[in-house]
Amino acid sequence: MRMAELSGRSGVPTATIKYYLREGLLPRGRRVNATQAEYGEEHVRRLRLVRALIQVGRMPVTAAREVLDAVDDASLSQHERLGTAAWALPRPVPPGQAGTGAGDTGDADEAGDAASARHEVAALLDRLGWQEAGPDSPPGQALTAAVAALTRLGYPCDAAHLTLFARAAERMAAAELDLLESFPDQAAQVEASVALTVLYEPVLLSLRRLAHVEESARRFRAEEE
Amino acid sequence: MRMAELSGRSGVPTATIKYYLREGLLPRGRRVNATQAEYGEEHVRRLRLVRALIQVGRMPVTAAREVLDAVDDASLSQHERLGTAAWALPRPVPPGQAGTGAGDTGDADEAGDAASARHEVAALLDRLGWQEAGPDSPPGQALTAAVAALTRLGYPCDAAHLTLFARAAERMAAAELDLLESFPDQAAQVEASVALTVLYEPVLLSLRRLAHVEESARRFRAEEE
Repeated sequence: MRMAELSGRSGVPTATIKYYLREGLLPRGRRVNATQAEYGEEHVRRLRLVRALIQVGRMPVTAAREVLDAVDDASLSQHERLGTAAWALPRPVPPGQAGTGAGDTGDADEAGDAASARHEVAALLDRLGWQEAGPDSPPGQALTAAVAALTRLGYPCDAAHLTLFARAAERMAAAELDLLESFPDQAAQVEASVALTVLYEPVLLSLRRLAHVEESARRFRAEEE
Repeated sequence: MRMAELSGRSGVPTATIKYYLREGLLPRGRRVNATQAEYGEEHVRRLRLVRALIQVGRMPVTAAREVLDAVDDASLSQHERLGTAAWALPRPVPPGQAGTGAGDTGDADEAGDAASARHEVAALLDRLGWQEAGPDSPPGQALTAAVAALTRLGYPCDAAHLTLFARAAERMAAAELDLLESFPDQAAQVEASVALTVLYEPVLLSLRRLAHVEESARRFRAEEE
């Protein structure tokens, strides 16, 4: 298909497609003459992923390009490429934000909190039998930072509770991998794993808030009436 | 306690405490003479919540103040005050980001996607028996925007999958309400519900990514070896 059809199929204006081509977010089409190129289904699919990262995930262009480079890295096995979402996407909490808040005192305390949070995360992963990504992997570090923030602020964050969350995450991951396996080929699966990781985060967080409201009504409304 | 002890107990420098007082994020202490005020446990607790919102949740001061005003609204019942987290916290996806991405064409298509996403969310809440917060509540709107983004980009977002996520969210909410009930009084419970909503979001998202890596290894590594 030509640029105009690619724009129609993807809902992305041609000016934006040209910008993505210049920025290396979309591979060039197959050139058919001096001014025109031919695009395929892989371009339609890639445009979806780019929109998921930039428009919904609000990633800067540079960060999106790094993620896409990892997605396209043909030197990796399919299993490794499916790890791209967990490894290359920006963390749920940027480093430093949860770990060392501006205006905090007590650097020694914080280092202690970080070390004990890392220990707690390592013990959790051990208990769960999760052996693929340790506490020093990007998602492991994000979890450690989040646990350290809870501890430092004096909020509860016990092993039983973390385990319950992790078991819920396991069930979700199994269902999401089922979804991924419905995509036609390995390249499409890798792209979808990145897009679904980003696009399902707000789904999950919204559902959690809705579930809180329900549970709170069940427990506290009856008391009040 | 005096300002210096409040600073020591909370780990927040006195200059920052004074700033929070000026901005109305922390209630004034009880004045004991012309230059000094006395602070209580409620100030220690409130400083924790302020840090959770501003340092970890990265909320602007104005938004944090609005959340705290809702937390303090004595005209509401305990059940309604516990809804503050879901109602007053910024949404997982800011309005407009997922709904109407910059550079999109096809306004009519988008309006159609939004309407069908709202219908899908309403049907989901109905099926789940969740009656407290409809599709037009803040968390309902956030879910609708996230579902609309998935649909518009052509990624799967079926009822079975959403239901599975919602059931996982229900289990987490029950455990989190257990945690809340361990706080000593109603005011502390309301503050903790807001802080835990914010602080557990990165925990949940990190665990989901870790679970993906595990599940992907189980399914794809074996095939490759």
